[in-house]
Amino acid sequence: MNVIKSNIYNQLENIVGKKYISKTKELLDMYTKDWSFHAPSLADIIVWPKSAKEISMVLKIANKNKIPVIPWGGGSSLEGNPIPTKGGIVLDMIRMNKVLEIMDRDMQVKVQPGIIGDELNDQLKKYNLFFPAAPGSSAIATIGGMIANNAGGMNAVKYGVVGNSVLELEVVLADGRIIRLGSRSVKSVSGYDLKNLIIGSEGTLGVITTAVLKLSPLPKNKIAIMASFETVKDAVNATLDILKSDCEAAAIEFMDKTYIYYVNKAKITSFPEKPTIIIELHGGADVIAIYLDIIKKILKRNKNISYSEFISPSQLKLLWGYRKAVRPVLSKLLPNRGVLSAEVGVPISKVESFLKKAESLSEKHKLQTVMFGHIGDGNFHGWALYELNNNDSWRRVSMLNDELIKFAISVNGTTTGEHGIGIGKRKFLPVEHPTSLPIMKDIKNLFDPNNILNPGKIFID
Amino acid sequence: MNVIKSNIYNQLENIVGKKYISKTKELLDMYTKDWSFHAPSLADIIVWPKSAKEISMVLKIANKNKIPVIPWGGGSSLEGNPIPTKGGIVLDMIRMNKVLEIMDRDMQVKVQPGIIGDELNDQLKKYNLFFPAAPGSSAIATIGGMIANNAGGMNAVKYGVVGNSVLELEVVLADGRIIRLGSRSVKSVSGYDLKNLIIGSEGTLGVITTAVLKLSPLPKNKIAIMASFETVKDAVNATLDILKSDCEAAAIEFMDKTYIYYVNKAKITSFPEKPTIIIELHGGADVIAIYLDIIKKILKRNKNISYSEFISPSQLKLLWGYRKAVRPVLSKLLPNRGVLSAEVGVPISKVESFLKKAESLSEKHKLQTVMFGHIGDGNFHGWALYELNNNDSWRRVSMLNDELIKFAISVNGTTTGEHGIGIGKRKFLPVEHPTSLPIMKDIKNLFDPNNILNPGKIFID
Repeated sequence: MNVIKSNIYNQLENIVGKKYISKTKELLDMYTKDWSFHAPSLADIIVWPKSAKEISMVLKIANKNKIPVIPWGGGSSLEGNPIPTKGGIVLDMIRMNKVLEIMDRDMQVKVQPGIIGDELNDQLKKYNLFFPAAPGSSAIATIGGMIANNAGGMNAVKYGVVGNSVLELEVVLADGRIIRLGSRSVKSVSGYDLKNLIIGSEGTLGVITTAVLKLSPLPKNKIAIMASFETVKDAVNATLDILKSDCEAAAIEFMDKTYIYYVNKAKITSFPEKPTIIIELHGGADVIAIYLDIIKKILKRNKNISYSEFISPSQLKLLWGYRKAVRPVLSKLLPNRGVLSAEVGVPISKVESFLKKAESLSEKHKLQTVMFGHIGDGNFHGWALYELNNNDSWRRVSMLNDELIKFAISVNGTTTGEHGIGIGKRKFLPVEHPTSLPIMKDIKNLFDPNNILNPGKIFID
Repeated sequence: MNVIKSNIYNQLENIVGKKYISKTKELLDMYTKDWSFHAPSLADIIVWPKSAKEISMVLKIANKNKIPVIPWGGGSSLEGNPIPTKGGIVLDMIRMNKVLEIMDRDMQVKVQPGIIGDELNDQLKKYNLFFPAAPGSSAIATIGGMIANNAGGMNAVKYGVVGNSVLELEVVLADGRIIRLGSRSVKSVSGYDLKNLIIGSEGTLGVITTAVLKLSPLPKNKIAIMASFETVKDAVNATLDILKSDCEAAAIEFMDKTYIYYVNKAKITSFPEKPTIIIELHGGADVIAIYLDIIKKILKRNKNISYSEFISPSQLKLLWGYRKAVRPVLSKLLPNRGVLSAEVGVPISKVESFLKKAESLSEKHKLQTVMFGHIGDGNFHGWALYELNNNDSWRRVSMLNDELIKFAISVNGTTTGEHGIGIGKRKFLPVEHPTSLPIMKDIKNLFDPNNILNPGKIFID
């Protein structure tokens, strides 16, 4: 159906008002792609709803007319998750960006989905609270998008992923029904856990319109240690020893020697170009001092060859600046290269063999790779560089990505630890979950029989 | 259908063998009730399967013939969750009680569902690991039962509930399909989260046949503090302050003055008969010492009137002995009374008003209540005493229970924090979840269209 030529536009305009709907190319162009390499695609209409009720009315019309509806948060996903591949209506949630209720005694907050992660945390600062689960994109990503994709991030080692901090959700279903899931009681076993079914469903089962989140006390102090090793094996063993120790790490990150090479290039530093981990600790100063002692012993036992502490907020900012500097420097140093962002999860004991596999695949396909990730929970990232406008190079980089994912699955890992299935990983869902995929499809069909909610994602049509 | 008279028995015997099936009254009598007050009911057949494959074959026959199938663990649930109210086949999982694989480097274990919680932890001790989530009944409860009911327990404050430690499940569906859910990667967002749909579904969606569990390092030290207060308000404020502090509690328990009165009676102790909390800390000795300082300051600020530390393993055993002594002493002191075990979850800031409500309801209904619970996550228990064989007394105690649950729901709490819906709380599911209950029923129908899996639980027919 040509959505624009039909009277759908007028019906939607009646719901949200003239000011909050558009079909102009200039605006539609802003909703064609996320941060991934996937091909852009144009929607037909953008709607900026202000309430669950408006969304419910929009969905009823869309459902009746079988028009795709794509909820839109910050647009920072990395697997094409919100690309409107089949056109339709983009629901930009930006107007629904309020903090509705701060329950500081219970360390809970009720928010609308359009609020950006960092903005929420700014508002929570005065209560000495924060929403701990945050992807690297928290300056742009919305809470609704984070929940819909069950985002991860560095601090999941201590605080869990986004889904672990969601207590209650209000969701609009494809047929317009508004439902509430979960409870503000931290523990609840009242009926089936539909809340976790919505979390991570990438907008394919419903539109999240409110969330009650569990918060954590803002850590009094943060400190980070950067240490390098001769071998990946030593770095992995140090990580496993820390996880098994009395010391509670907030984050344990890994960077391979190539990553450090680019850090040095980008920041004119001289870190050893060796497998490197960064450990972040949160807490009272006296407890952190004890943890530091434990960590130093563990690092020594695992033969670290360098050690630096980052203590003040400015030092910490510098450190995470190094960590984030590589992607921009790649574009600068290698302007004719594209970057494919790979991402998988493996049991931590398999990290070494995973990185060996990545190395041998890079050699086989004559590609350069930069490997890094959240080693504290086995969630790995890799960038594979390819030549732009070179089909053969793209073919090789895609093969490398596919083989890495298959390897992760073969060692009891997962296709995706935090980016989601989106478009790019649909073909691996049957490989990882051959027995439960039919049930997932049944559930999609139960929630959204006309396949209007973010169609073409998670499942191959 | 009369299951026994039909040829079903022979078909099942062919699957599991003569030795592992029975229809004798003496054995059936052992599977008529759990630890709740709900009426017992007889199954027709007991089967002791040894594998997912056997269970799959049993379910195919049951599904074809529309015979109820009730998975049976330790039988220690408290809401009638496994009572075979409609007869049928009880699947006792006791033969499937093996530890299949210990992945100590990854702090994971693969188990069969019939293994008992404490037995698993005995086997893990030599690896300095343990499965932290454990209900009070962990000496009897099986891991499969704990997962099926998403059991909680005292240590959920630090370690989460049972479901938070489940990484992977193998499940047999009503139609005999064997599916695998989840991943051994700690983080995974690969498709819909069906694992959490099975967790807490009380055996109504599938039969759990294998689980991969996330373990925690065995704490080097444990210490507990018992402190009492003039008012419940002070006890609640102390709890909230501890949760918001740098000190990480493993458990925070509450006992009301009546509870302490019975502790004193039972153990000939002389604890102040006042609102009391117990805080348990886990970790290295030096970190615990720092936490203790923090806790002492918080208690003082909230005007505690007593303080005791329990440090050695024998002291700790004594302390938790006090905590567990009340139920038996009630039976001894009041032999003609029954006990209804109430259980709800509320946001912690609502605990004070919840306990006031309990007090006023006790007066209104002329009943004695004993209130206690996992205050660290707002999960409350209460015992209401009633006269055996006195209909009026039972009516009043039931009304009190109903009103407490409705109050919990009215303050954004939940019908049940850890016992589940079972039989007793089915009528409250529509009160707590009016908008999502239809979807829960749709999902039951999707997984089990013939309603053979633990029928009559969670939903009123």
